[in-house]
Amino acid sequence: MIKKLLGLALTLASLPFSSFLVIGAQASLASEQHPCLMLTPDGVASIRANLGKAPLFDASLAETKASLEKILNDPPDVPVPKDASGPTQQRHARNESEMRNAGFLYQVTGDTRYAVFVKSRLESYATLYPTLGVHPASKENNPGRLFWQPLNEANWLVDVSQAYDCIYDILTSDERSRFETNIFRPMVQFISVVHEKEFNIMHNHATWFVSAVGMAGYVMGDQNIVKKALYGTKMDGSAGFFRQMEELFSPDGYYCEGPYYARYALMPFFIFAEVIQNNQPELKVFQRHGEILKKSLYATLQQTDPLGSFFPLNDSMKEMNFRSGAIIFPVDLTFARYGHDASLLSVVQSQGRVSLDPSGQSVAMALAADPNPPAFPYASVEYSDGPDGRGGGLGILRSGLGKDLSVAMMKYSSLGMGHGHYDKLALEYYDQGREILTDYGSVRFVNVEQKYGGRYLPENNSYAKQTIAHNTVVVDESSHYSGNYNTAKTLHSEKGFFDLQGPDFQVMSATDTTAVPGVAMRRTVAMVRDKTLDHPVLLDVFRLSSEKEHLYDYPFHFMGQFMESNLKLTPYLTELHSLGGGNGYQHLWVESEGTIKENGGSLSFTWLDGNRYYTITSAADPSTKIVFTRTGASDPNFNLRHEPAMILRQKAANHVFASAIEPHGSFDGAKESTSGSYPVIRSVTVLASTEEGTVVRITGERKIQWTVLIANNSPDPSTKHSMKAGEETISWVGPAKIIKQ
Amino acid sequence: MIKKLLGLALTLASLPFSSFLVIGAQASLASEQHPCLMLTPDGVASIRANLGKAPLFDASLAETKASLEKILNDPPDVPVPKDASGPTQQRHARNESEMRNAGFLYQVTGDTRYAVFVKSRLESYATLYPTLGVHPASKENNPGRLFWQPLNEANWLVDVSQAYDCIYDILTSDERSRFETNIFRPMVQFISVVHEKEFNIMHNHATWFVSAVGMAGYVMGDQNIVKKALYGTKMDGSAGFFRQMEELFSPDGYYCEGPYYARYALMPFFIFAEVIQNNQPELKVFQRHGEILKKSLYATLQQTDPLGSFFPLNDSMKEMNFRSGAIIFPVDLTFARYGHDASLLSVVQSQGRVSLDPSGQSVAMALAADPNPPAFPYASVEYSDGPDGRGGGLGILRSGLGKDLSVAMMKYSSLGMGHGHYDKLALEYYDQGREILTDYGSVRFVNVEQKYGGRYLPENNSYAKQTIAHNTVVVDESSHYSGNYNTAKTLHSEKGFFDLQGPDFQVMSATDTTAVPGVAMRRTVAMVRDKTLDHPVLLDVFRLSSEKEHLYDYPFHFMGQFMESNLKLTPYLTELHSLGGGNGYQHLWVESEGTIKENGGSLSFTWLDGNRYYTITSAADPSTKIVFTRTGASDPNFNLRHEPAMILRQKAANHVFASAIEPHGSFDGAKESTSGSYPVIRSVTVLASTEEGTVVRITGERKIQWTVLIANNSPDPSTKHSMKAGEETISWVGPAKIIKQ
Repeated sequence: MIKKLLGLALTLASLPFSSFLVIGAQASLASEQHPCLMLTPDGVASIRANLGKAPLFDASLAETKASLEKILNDPPDVPVPKDASGPTQQRHARNESEMRNAGFLYQVTGDTRYAVFVKSRLESYATLYPTLGVHPASKENNPGRLFWQPLNEANWLVDVSQAYDCIYDILTSDERSRFETNIFRPMVQFISVVHEKEFNIMHNHATWFVSAVGMAGYVMGDQNIVKKALYGTKMDGSAGFFRQMEELFSPDGYYCEGPYYARYALMPFFIFAEVIQNNQPELKVFQRHGEILKKSLYATLQQTDPLGSFFPLNDSMKEMNFRSGAIIFPVDLTFARYGHDASLLSVVQSQGRVSLDPSGQSVAMALAADPNPPAFPYASVEYSDGPDGRGGGLGILRSGLGKDLSVAMMKYSSLGMGHGHYDKLALEYYDQGREILTDYGSVRFVNVEQKYGGRYLPENNSYAKQTIAHNTVVVDESSHYSGNYNTAKTLHSEKGFFDLQGPDFQVMSATDTTAVPGVAMRRTVAMVRDKTLDHPVLLDVFRLSSEKEHLYDYPFHFMGQFMESNLKLTPYLTELHSLGGGNGYQHLWVESEGTIKENGGSLSFTWLDGNRYYTITSAADPSTKIVFTRTGASDPNFNLRHEPAMILRQKAANHVFASAIEPHGSFDGAKESTSGSYPVIRSVTVLASTEEGTVVRITGERKIQWTVLIANNSPDPSTKHSMKAGEETISWVGPAKIIKQ
Repeated sequence: MIKKLLGLALTLASLPFSSFLVIGAQASLASEQHPCLMLTPDGVASIRANLGKAPLFDASLAETKASLEKILNDPPDVPVPKDASGPTQQRHARNESEMRNAGFLYQVTGDTRYAVFVKSRLESYATLYPTLGVHPASKENNPGRLFWQPLNEANWLVDVSQAYDCIYDILTSDERSRFETNIFRPMVQFISVVHEKEFNIMHNHATWFVSAVGMAGYVMGDQNIVKKALYGTKMDGSAGFFRQMEELFSPDGYYCEGPYYARYALMPFFIFAEVIQNNQPELKVFQRHGEILKKSLYATLQQTDPLGSFFPLNDSMKEMNFRSGAIIFPVDLTFARYGHDASLLSVVQSQGRVSLDPSGQSVAMALAADPNPPAFPYASVEYSDGPDGRGGGLGILRSGLGKDLSVAMMKYSSLGMGHGHYDKLALEYYDQGREILTDYGSVRFVNVEQKYGGRYLPENNSYAKQTIAHNTVVVDESSHYSGNYNTAKTLHSEKGFFDLQGPDFQVMSATDTTAVPGVAMRRTVAMVRDKTLDHPVLLDVFRLSSEKEHLYDYPFHFMGQFMESNLKLTPYLTELHSLGGGNGYQHLWVESEGTIKENGGSLSFTWLDGNRYYTITSAADPSTKIVFTRTGASDPNFNLRHEPAMILRQKAANHVFASAIEPHGSFDGAKESTSGSYPVIRSVTVLASTEEGTVVRITGERKIQWTVLIANNSPDPSTKHSMKAGEETISWVGPAKIIKQ
């Protein structure tokens, strides 16, 4: 049995035995039974036995059948590759999923038309593939063959290995030999040998690479190929799938690139894990590294807004949410493999689809039995970053329920690889299920050929990655790490404290000394509930310390319509200019500039977003300059959305920006009713800020007088702090405290 | 019986008997039974008998009870009036609806706590009202007392008359006398005597005025007051409710101000009609003027997009839809009074609420019995404007079903009173339930005190009303009628033809010679389906004729993101200027300018809106200048939304703008899939345009070659046309034809 042989391989895996393997040698051994990848004979039997009992699964099955029925008699369309996102690319991508689905349907229904469909296409690929050289739309340093980049080749192989697996038993040995010789082995060779370097890196591309190669290895019964997938081409564990499980996630499951790419990375992690489990259960893949796959799924779901959209950290598309096809199977498999957590069923409900495999069916059966599952347990939670959990992290504060969940998220992780943004200590904020303080996301229209072939657009680098595109402080109009990838990739912010003192006061704090040499930053964000207020208020205290004077820009990328400010503003009425010449500033039109009207006051700015008002009340003095901007400048190809921001600018060596962000009132356009359009909070003042701590006073109507105390020197919960704020000496214990009078 | 006496009044109504009435004289006569307005003893009995049988009604009732329960023991809060949209205004507005609801609940439940609630407030108003002079926030020429404008006073009286009516029977005659002497009679006097001029005009304000006064008349049993409401203060039928029914609607039910204000006007029309029916059924109010109330309700519903939002004609808020409270009762009453049309139940379903009266209960019972009612029959339909139907009109073309309904609307009506916009022959277009080519609507944030007290903002006049804010041609950068209200209000466009030749070719055409002296305009819009295309295409042919050369601006206010154009564009990257100095142009930033690249081609511009691409292909030559703009200039208080437009500019005496607007392909962000991002239509050419007709050629991929023939001289379906287009002589019969080759 292949399983036993590979069990032996595991034992050997820790030994440095790579030298005795000849790459490409056909050390094959036919698997004794097929299917053996995502399906097994037992899995197929179970699916057949339970047909008609799981409505969501049955619907997905019926839909897949109906969609295949339309093309089942079409001759294979396997064109010579030409374009990067045009018709030939799309055709090969469709072929792969059609073949996978047809294979699956053959196993479930026994209808040989499906098998014939798969086989005819394999024949075509067996003819085409050996003729291919470098794909004509390839980038020089990363050539593909069937697709413009090898990543898509790996995606294809993941699907087509499954299709082959499903019809393996009806093929003659000649046919198998032809397909393996002309398609599977050369593709494995291409991905793992020609692209050996990328195969061995710690990156989501490599996860697809090893999964594709490993699945081809299992289906061909070739233990050497499988070993390379599991342990890297050297087969010593220095790379490969298991190493990736350890390196690409933090110990609590945060995926290093952030949730948008987590969605893309989880797919091969979960698929290949299931394949490994089906072939080598003794490897205990689902238990590995502290059940890291389970943790990663939950962490990814926690990184969604109340409507299921992923936080747009780093390069990411805002339309992407947990209803994405890529997240369906990981959810279903987590349910099936990790104890049937009913709260996942509410996610499945929202997805409205299940995967076509035994786990999808089991989820659908569970949902049929429990049609009102508990909500997914969104929580205030902190994630660490880095394989050892020491690369900073990500803090999420939540308050409320359902659509009325308030969410604040601060990013103090490492860069997050090549798709990372220069946005240390950036803040995002959601309320009403909407973006309130927002991250631009990416400048890209995925797969839209007119927009640079659907790739990242130039403004992604020139704007979206730059610091000013985020809700965090920019120093001297330059991005963090001066926008230098090689500097940024090795450095990270530091966790400060994450302190959930109760539903009325939740606070998180982080620091950074790496982003701007000579400038130390600490951002502390608190979510405060108060019985006099309808909604939680966000407090934001951003402390900057330097020996030299700098220009600090503190932006709020707000969504919605300007209602009112107490500022003395000069609006630009007939002519607009961009705010700066580089680092993203070239993309901002200045719509108005101003200052606060009198000393001793606070800045107050109210806007309307959705059905609610929001007011930023911010400590400011006449030296604070305020700029209202809108994206859209320096955009020759109209790639940017046009979104507003308010920026507070302060020249200082040491400075604290302190703000309260208050949701208030309501606006209903269809009822033409409004209420509470004025904020309750009226002033925010920094009373003192030293190495010891920062003291901020918030006052407002309804007798609001809050004093917020933040320890700058120690997160220890038992450390005593004492400092002068004006005449008064204030003492407290622990990292942060709110005193309400 | 009051009913008999008022029946007599009807007979007298046609006589000129106004002279013998002394305004304010107490010609009262106690009604023999109460309630007698919206409720009757029979109606109450019916409601009580059917409680528990109509879920939506029961839910509305429970909600109203719960909301009143919270305040039932509160002492009356009847403040001295102070503000226009602040706390005192809001308090009085809440009082009126709370009193109406409490009165209703008293009748339905018999619980005297509700009656006490109403009575205590009437006592407070009886004390306050006689002390009031001019409201401090009034406008000089239109003083209110309890509210800043008399309109709100009329709204209040409509509600509070009902509250009084409901508790009439438990009051002593002293109490009645006090309330009538201190509140109802002085308010009637204020509305109908002090504001006699406005009371007698043909306007929705006057509909509220006469309804309020008439209801006070009925509840007090004062026939003279009722007569004034029905026939005007002269009681000769020259004004009043019945005259309004004839003057404010066209014979087919189009309300002269457009659908947004129709929503506001229908409320008093339907309320007071029901009151009249309950008191003087012999007046046959619901049959009057060809069942005009029924027609008006259906016409208003037809003027909604696929999601139920009203077309934003004239001053209007885009958030307003048929779920608005104001439209609920008219729908319910139309169902109850006009033959129980089941298709209205689908609207009720979408509203999710019913009115608290017998019609609301009957609708809710019908819905309970028929939970899957037929969809509202959205159709291609033309409405006339003007009391005689000769004031131009409004054309609506539709194709498709549900959310995938394509809707094109052309406005060729009269101005539509003080809220009218200067937008002759303007086009709006919806698809996917979204705005594709859009009208800005109004610059206003209703009831938001920070935004000029919630009133219309200055940019409403300077931008939203101006021609350039609409999808219609501007001549010489000046608005239609030079933006002069007094000129505009007496003139209108003319119907051309409205020809539904079948689902594959629907066409409407209208002309205008009044908007710009010396310039004749004809716009013809067709919705074309073709088996080679996934969605209907909109064809737009806008012909301008003049003896002198003009600058013609032909704008497309599109929603969404620029994808691609075939233009030679100069984008403005670091500096923006506004397009002009007045007539709305001062509010447009110029983002880029350009021309087409070569002669003989067509302009092609593709954008993405929602999940679909749209391409405008437009006849153009190197003399056509193209400007891409965005609203936001000259906006010192940040009142405008920032929306894009493409404007084609042509210097000419005679010119035809001809365009195809093609929806194509799909974009799914969560699936990261896209298809069909390129248009099928590739060229639009005007082959000829004479007094006889216009010939336009449309060609594209998939062998599309269409010739569209439009008669410019006669809408007659049997008239033969013949004209030269290049070498060819083309002949056809009727107003418009499409030839597909």
